[in-house]
Amino acid sequence: MTVLSRNSFVIPYQYSVYFTHGVFSPGNPLLAEVLEQLSPALNPLPVMVVLDAGVQAAWPDLQQNLRAWFAQQGEHLQLRGPILVIPGGEPCKDGFAVPQQILTEAWERRLCRQSHIWAIGGGAFLDAVGLGAALFHRGVPLLRFPTTVLSQNDSGVGVKNGCNYAGGKNLAGVFAPPLAVINDSAFLTTLSDRDWRSGIAEAFKVAIIKDQAFLHWLCQHAHQLRQRDLALMEELVQRCAILHLQHIQNSGDPFESGSSRPLDFGHWSAHRLESMSGFSLKHGEAVSIGLALDLQYAVEIGLLSAAECRCCLAGLRACGLPTDHELLRARDENGQLLILSGLAEFREHLGGKLHLTLPDHLGQKIEVHEYDVQVVEKIVTAMDNHNDIGETGCGK
Amino acid sequence: MTVLSRNSFVIPYQYSVYFTHGVFSPGNPLLAEVLEQLSPALNPLPVMVVLDAGVQAAWPDLQQNLRAWFAQQGEHLQLRGPILVIPGGEPCKDGFAVPQQILTEAWERRLCRQSHIWAIGGGAFLDAVGLGAALFHRGVPLLRFPTTVLSQNDSGVGVKNGCNYAGGKNLAGVFAPPLAVINDSAFLTTLSDRDWRSGIAEAFKVAIIKDQAFLHWLCQHAHQLRQRDLALMEELVQRCAILHLQHIQNSGDPFESGSSRPLDFGHWSAHRLESMSGFSLKHGEAVSIGLALDLQYAVEIGLLSAAECRCCLAGLRACGLPTDHELLRARDENGQLLILSGLAEFREHLGGKLHLTLPDHLGQKIEVHEYDVQVVEKIVTAMDNHNDIGETGCGK
Repeated sequence: MTVLSRNSFVIPYQYSVYFTHGVFSPGNPLLAEVLEQLSPALNPLPVMVVLDAGVQAAWPDLQQNLRAWFAQQGEHLQLRGPILVIPGGEPCKDGFAVPQQILTEAWERRLCRQSHIWAIGGGAFLDAVGLGAALFHRGVPLLRFPTTVLSQNDSGVGVKNGCNYAGGKNLAGVFAPPLAVINDSAFLTTLSDRDWRSGIAEAFKVAIIKDQAFLHWLCQHAHQLRQRDLALMEELVQRCAILHLQHIQNSGDPFESGSSRPLDFGHWSAHRLESMSGFSLKHGEAVSIGLALDLQYAVEIGLLSAAECRCCLAGLRACGLPTDHELLRARDENGQLLILSGLAEFREHLGGKLHLTLPDHLGQKIEVHEYDVQVVEKIVTAMDNHNDIGETGCGK
Repeated sequence: MTVLSRNSFVIPYQYSVYFTHGVFSPGNPLLAEVLEQLSPALNPLPVMVVLDAGVQAAWPDLQQNLRAWFAQQGEHLQLRGPILVIPGGEPCKDGFAVPQQILTEAWERRLCRQSHIWAIGGGAFLDAVGLGAALFHRGVPLLRFPTTVLSQNDSGVGVKNGCNYAGGKNLAGVFAPPLAVINDSAFLTTLSDRDWRSGIAEAFKVAIIKDQAFLHWLCQHAHQLRQRDLALMEELVQRCAILHLQHIQNSGDPFESGSSRPLDFGHWSAHRLESMSGFSLKHGEAVSIGLALDLQYAVEIGLLSAAECRCCLAGLRACGLPTDHELLRARDENGQLLILSGLAEFREHLGGKLHLTLPDHLGQKIEVHEYDVQVVEKIVTAMDNHNDIGETGCGK
């Protein structure tokens, strides 16, 4: 056996997440300063802007404001072609249609490898547009402008993109860090109440396994958060986004080449519930239900006290998030709980060995490799009998 | 402006290129040893094997040998599903059909993120299958078995994959290092004479700008190489592959985030010639013609002596490679040389500023940022008048 050459190198990645309000307002200097710091290689720098149709509907003046903003920047920035508007939401991640549209548009607008793509929209939209940007010339710089709570505090600040394919959720994608992320809290003000609330679930997820003080903060301010207090939501988004970024930076495995995915707490059932509901459940709502199930499981196997669990469930409910759903008790023709196929899918995705994250007391996590189906049966049956739990607990 | 979190991390990559003969022969221990060294996380390790239809046609017993090889490995390896045979060559890179086929097959065969995909075939085939593997679950381990001279000494040992899209060559793709590369010289023995020879062009390319001793070796052995001396070809492939790997490892920019691509010497016109010929010119043949043009250009601008240039041209010809083509003189309706649009495409791809590599004496390179169209005119006209240059030079 001859090893003729061992090829070994490292690729450094770095990006920043910025928080602002009204990024394209005339008096807001942030974006110009960010671009100056990034010192693009091109002058003028061509930018293709891609906009979530839902965001455009909520912000009818946005296109005009964007064009005015570009006009103010002088000649070193060039809005290349009309703003491309694409319908967002989970359907835009269905197959390669959107990534291919990005490729075609970028090619027809004569973007080069160092041109920018700026994507303004929700999480699914950013996933699909981001995949197109990651593929174009093997990756062009992407600026993400997440517009929902969920994308600002979780998916939009991370390193993933992708689309659903052949029935597999996120089956196709790549790890591709953005050039920068601009979290603009103004976009949150026009969210529906459901979208506003559902993003809070990911904050609970990360707080429960990583940051007990943040969890208590969430529970303390649950009512005001539900009542759409923007300053509190800004704080939630920032704390949650930072925890997410710290996880990526400090996990030692930002591109998940190993088997563990510790931020997937509550997600094995959430993914299943989402698709079982025909996506009438929003991702954050499904995550909230998935957290409730995993929290009660953690109690059953002795990782969490019943009081700690009640505290979390009450906090979720106080934010207006669901902690139970009839689909948890849906069964197939053999009487098997349908959500359990989510567990099988997770196991398969991870190569046959299950790796699940559960809380080990509040603010800490532990990895488990089995999940007792009988315990799940017990929990979902008990949930059905105890849907009278109030919205209290957690030191309130 | 608030920078709330700067996310900074490095991703380490490492892979080895192995050289062998008859990798699936019963007595060859290499592949089992490679797998043991890689120590896969899964046991059994599921493997989806994808085979270039052209390779299958040349090796009718290969499927049987592969299955026999798997049978010998015991239970820690599992050939997952039938060997997937896909037509190779440039057409398999036409759009997302092949990458999508890989995604669908891998999903239906229930491969997980740590399963293997093994791809056996030529350069274009490896590009397209590799893109599918890089996308599946955001990237599964890929073992490449390049089967042509060109893929064994150049593209197959590198970090790129991709497909052509919307009229753009390699418009879609990602940088995704393989888990390992197995260069099996047995596959070279059934190549057509044209395929055998055309792979030699990339060896000249890298030798001219990086390794004068290798260039002289190529010229000295040109006749035997053309006569299909396998031992010499093995040496050529190894030396060339090592230079290619060293370039990736030592360039400081393996994923080409900067603008320079120093291994693209000769390629601005080669890409154009390939497509102008409707791909009747093989990639290596087009590269040989492209090298000839750039070499003569280097003489004209004083980077190379006429004798040095003659040496290289004679070496290429002695290997049976073309150093001129009538398409170099094809013109559009305005009398403009058609190949010059290749220069424009290169400039555009690189963001408006041209970066081309030329030899600076033999064995060294220099980057230039302009390319004089008048000089090109002069060269291609002169080439037309001097197609009587013999196959001598270079100290022979």
